[in-house]
Amino acid sequence: MIIAVDGMGGDNAPKEIIAGVYKALEEFSDLQIQLYGRQDRMAEYLKDHNRLAVIHCEEIIESTDDPVRAVRRKKDSSMVQMALAVKEGRADACVSAGNTGALMSAGLFVVGRIEGVDRPALAPTLPTIDRKGFLMLDMGANAEARPEHLVQYAIMGSIYAEKVRGITNPTVGLLNIGTEEKKGNELTKAAFPLLKEAPINFIGNVESRDLLNGVADVVVTDGFTGNMVLKTIEGTAMNVFAMIKDVFNSSAKTKLAALLVKDDLRGLKGMLDYSEYGGAGLFGLKAPVIKAHGSSNGTALFNAIRQARTMVENDVAGTIYSTLKKENPHD
Amino acid sequence: MIIAVDGMGGDNAPKEIIAGVYKALEEFSDLQIQLYGRQDRMAEYLKDHNRLAVIHCEEIIESTDDPVRAVRRKKDSSMVQMALAVKEGRADACVSAGNTGALMSAGLFVVGRIEGVDRPALAPTLPTIDRKGFLMLDMGANAEARPEHLVQYAIMGSIYAEKVRGITNPTVGLLNIGTEEKKGNELTKAAFPLLKEAPINFIGNVESRDLLNGVADVVVTDGFTGNMVLKTIEGTAMNVFAMIKDVFNSSAKTKLAALLVKDDLRGLKGMLDYSEYGGAGLFGLKAPVIKAHGSSNGTALFNAIRQARTMVENDVAGTIYSTLKKENPHD
Repeated sequence: MIIAVDGMGGDNAPKEIIAGVYKALEEFSDLQIQLYGRQDRMAEYLKDHNRLAVIHCEEIIESTDDPVRAVRRKKDSSMVQMALAVKEGRADACVSAGNTGALMSAGLFVVGRIEGVDRPALAPTLPTIDRKGFLMLDMGANAEARPEHLVQYAIMGSIYAEKVRGITNPTVGLLNIGTEEKKGNELTKAAFPLLKEAPINFIGNVESRDLLNGVADVVVTDGFTGNMVLKTIEGTAMNVFAMIKDVFNSSAKTKLAALLVKDDLRGLKGMLDYSEYGGAGLFGLKAPVIKAHGSSNGTALFNAIRQARTMVENDVAGTIYSTLKKENPHD
Repeated sequence: MIIAVDGMGGDNAPKEIIAGVYKALEEFSDLQIQLYGRQDRMAEYLKDHNRLAVIHCEEIIESTDDPVRAVRRKKDSSMVQMALAVKEGRADACVSAGNTGALMSAGLFVVGRIEGVDRPALAPTLPTIDRKGFLMLDMGANAEARPEHLVQYAIMGSIYAEKVRGITNPTVGLLNIGTEEKKGNELTKAAFPLLKEAPINFIGNVESRDLLNGVADVVVTDGFTGNMVLKTIEGTAMNVFAMIKDVFNSSAKTKLAALLVKDDLRGLKGMLDYSEYGGAGLFGLKAPVIKAHGSSNGTALFNAIRQARTMVENDVAGTIYSTLKKENPHD
């Protein structure tokens, strides 16, 4: 199996990217890696390895670049070249910690959609209190969604949860503002009956206040709502922790308390850090495309590579294709 | 000024409702209160007061009742009678801690909309870290919204922030998944240019992760998104506090730490409790209708009455009417 990696993406590139690459090569003896990026920037971190190919690319897509334009113009960038390798069958999957929008564009326009999928979805695994995590999609690949898109998200998420996360008969919930069938906006009301008919374990509407409690293994929503909820969870958790820090700093007494619980509370913060659950998959593309966090360190990048590897090994893209084909045989 | 109060609404009715009523009568010597509800249930908490009128109503709208049907069928309920008093000019405003959906229906169908307002909006004041709070609307009166509704929400929210919360030239933000003008879904993209032209201090898109930091005095969004974000904040904060509690209970060392910071942390939890910021206004109705929290105690109910009183005193409904009239003179 060959995985293409964007050596220039993310805040800690190329150093941590390369650290993750070597860790993956060490862990998986069947794995070959193609590393795309500027030789001059990567050289100091590279050592020879018989399963590593380094491919020089002159250009870099920056996090501030306009996604669509960057992918169109920077043809010799590490991200576009990595995606091209997948498209042309020279690699089985690709991983980048770079510009999310650009990676979505590269996935859509270079790697290409699976036949039968109208829109790819960005699907991170989000934290739950019991540390199992849940898959949520779409988190912003497309702001708008039609009811049938939510059904496709549900099928893709289900297949991933089963094949990659090892969950038997994963539960799928529709994110909504109430649990009753008739609740919600036009989109959720129209999607509900379609989801009931889909080949998934649909458990009905789920509310955002129950997400961290692991209310479903897969939660589907439109990209606008998904992104909104993700940012709300992040912002709220961050603020609560900041407030707690202030409390601990407020007096000698509380500073003593802080000393006593510091380590345990740090673990807590990690629990809500969704980068610990791996990268976000771009589902619905012809081959796995994984978005590792912008702040990925070597371990996070390694996890993203492992995730891509498991997706290839279990033929997630092929299963999505054949499942959707069965649903809509005349498409 | 006469304020009508629903004596039977909320988890702590009628006891705490009546406690709030007496507190308000004591505080405001210009205030008369009409208390609607079942005499048999309220009698034990009542004492004579020359500015209090008790009006017996046979029926009660329960929190489990279907909102629209309850308002239509339970004509002699405390909530419907209270709203009727406002409609017929026997009272200037009304307050209930009962069934939110039913109160919205009673507001819409009994009290009635201000001419020029297409849809009323549910507008609570949500907490911020600096304890100033911000107004967010719509929080679920209408799941769907059109761009022009968001403009009406913005104008109503602005007027309230200025007249009731005493904020000069309040900032108004459009809740979105990015700060750039072109970000978002069809609704936010279409609303943005309209908000720029509206007679408000529009500061552009704001993100949900910045809400608790007080990014704007007034934040507008459709009811589906607003309700979703509210529940996400609640769920995340609740879960983080539960996790912290678990950490504190995990060992003798952490239990000692808990003793040292318990009181300070309790204050923190209150900081995120939006019932401390008063009830939620139903904006766009001919007279103030305030939804106090279902779990309101006497103080919360008193705060809701004070809020209604300030809205009447500053003629919020009249100002909304004349401002919208100026915007659309031919409506």
